[in-house]
Amino acid sequence: MLTEKLSEITEKRLIEYIKEHGLKAGERLPNESDLSKLLGVGRGTIREAVRMLAGRNVLDVRHGSGTFVAADKIGVGDDPLGFTFIDDKKQLTFDLMEIRMMIEPRIASMAALMADEEQIAEIKALAKAVEMQIHNDVNHINTDILFHSKIAESTGNLVIPNLMPIIQQAIVMFINVTDRDLKQETIETHRAIVDSIEARDPIGASDAMMLHLIYNRNRIKKIFADQ
Amino acid sequence: MLTEKLSEITEKRLIEYIKEHGLKAGERLPNESDLSKLLGVGRGTIREAVRMLAGRNVLDVRHGSGTFVAADKIGVGDDPLGFTFIDDKKQLTFDLMEIRMMIEPRIASMAALMADEEQIAEIKALAKAVEMQIHNDVNHINTDILFHSKIAESTGNLVIPNLMPIIQQAIVMFINVTDRDLKQETIETHRAIVDSIEARDPIGASDAMMLHLIYNRNRIKKIFADQ
Repeated sequence: MLTEKLSEITEKRLIEYIKEHGLKAGERLPNESDLSKLLGVGRGTIREAVRMLAGRNVLDVRHGSGTFVAADKIGVGDDPLGFTFIDDKKQLTFDLMEIRMMIEPRIASMAALMADEEQIAEIKALAKAVEMQIHNDVNHINTDILFHSKIAESTGNLVIPNLMPIIQQAIVMFINVTDRDLKQETIETHRAIVDSIEARDPIGASDAMMLHLIYNRNRIKKIFADQ
Repeated sequence: MLTEKLSEITEKRLIEYIKEHGLKAGERLPNESDLSKLLGVGRGTIREAVRMLAGRNVLDVRHGSGTFVAADKIGVGDDPLGFTFIDDKKQLTFDLMEIRMMIEPRIASMAALMADEEQIAEIKALAKAVEMQIHNDVNHINTDILFHSKIAESTGNLVIPNLMPIIQQAIVMFINVTDRDLKQETIETHRAIVDSIEARDPIGASDAMMLHLIYNRNRIKKIFADQ
């Protein structure tokens, strides 16, 4: 119990070390032996704390080359909201969709007000890429997530770009998307979202996003009803 | 690199083990040596994977007594959305508040439609407890979070009850709440939320929650402006 507490304290002190020393994504930490001296705890405790931080995607342990600050989305682990452990995947999929319906129309509005020219160009390019993939009968799901993520990023909100992809990726994981229907609806509603953001029209962007989400929610309902 | 991959594969296989064997919160896993045999990997790899899962709050390692499935909020770790690593805490606080404004009014509506009698009684009791604490000049923040969490739970949505406390707790952490102002507004808007939920009035609940959040957002703005 005492040792466990020590590893948790060490976890916090390692985070402080990273922040105090301004270590950036991908930068290397001192080795185990040096960390042990620096923090005044045994190497075993350092190893435990480092592993716990690897589980949280704060650190990345590469055998033979050392321990590094995670390169991407530091502190946001694999499945941070514990979806793996929710057994009712149908209900989970609907409930995630419900969260999208709460936040994405307003996200689209914010993007219409806040996106800079470069972001608008990227949003347009991603919408185009999705269209191309649909026309070529290539799975567009990941590009689709990038499209929505770029809109989320354009709001300037610091949390939403971490949150949205988790929610979207989870929905994709849990539904059967092999048929990838809704092709025409996706193209049209994506275009309406892009046009409204470009026209700096927050109400139009919100409406277009809402329509897009309703199509998607109804598709999910139908897929589950048919199973 | 190869060993690292092995520890990640082992992480996933341990999760499968927990799910396949239906291990519940607080139940004990086989010891390291048995897990090593079961999964066909070395004890060092088991130890690494177990630690990573401890970091994600999937497992709880208690020295001297064994490794257990986490007792609470399995798979949702300490700071799952990586707020520790967002440096601009003011911006973060506003942005979290913005997310609350997107989701909590609708949560209140859903609670007005979905809460059962027991949940309504609990929501009322928590509102009362907050009032008592305010009258007795005791810090009511944690009870306040329980009040909002119980409303979130009453929606029946599987994700919201995991998400809301993270967002609320983070806001509390980052603002200076020592003066705990807004006492009368908190009492009145909480009452309006409770009354609307009890009256099965989704529009009233949404409006009352929105008013409550606007008071809170304005308070945060003022606290930051005065700093």
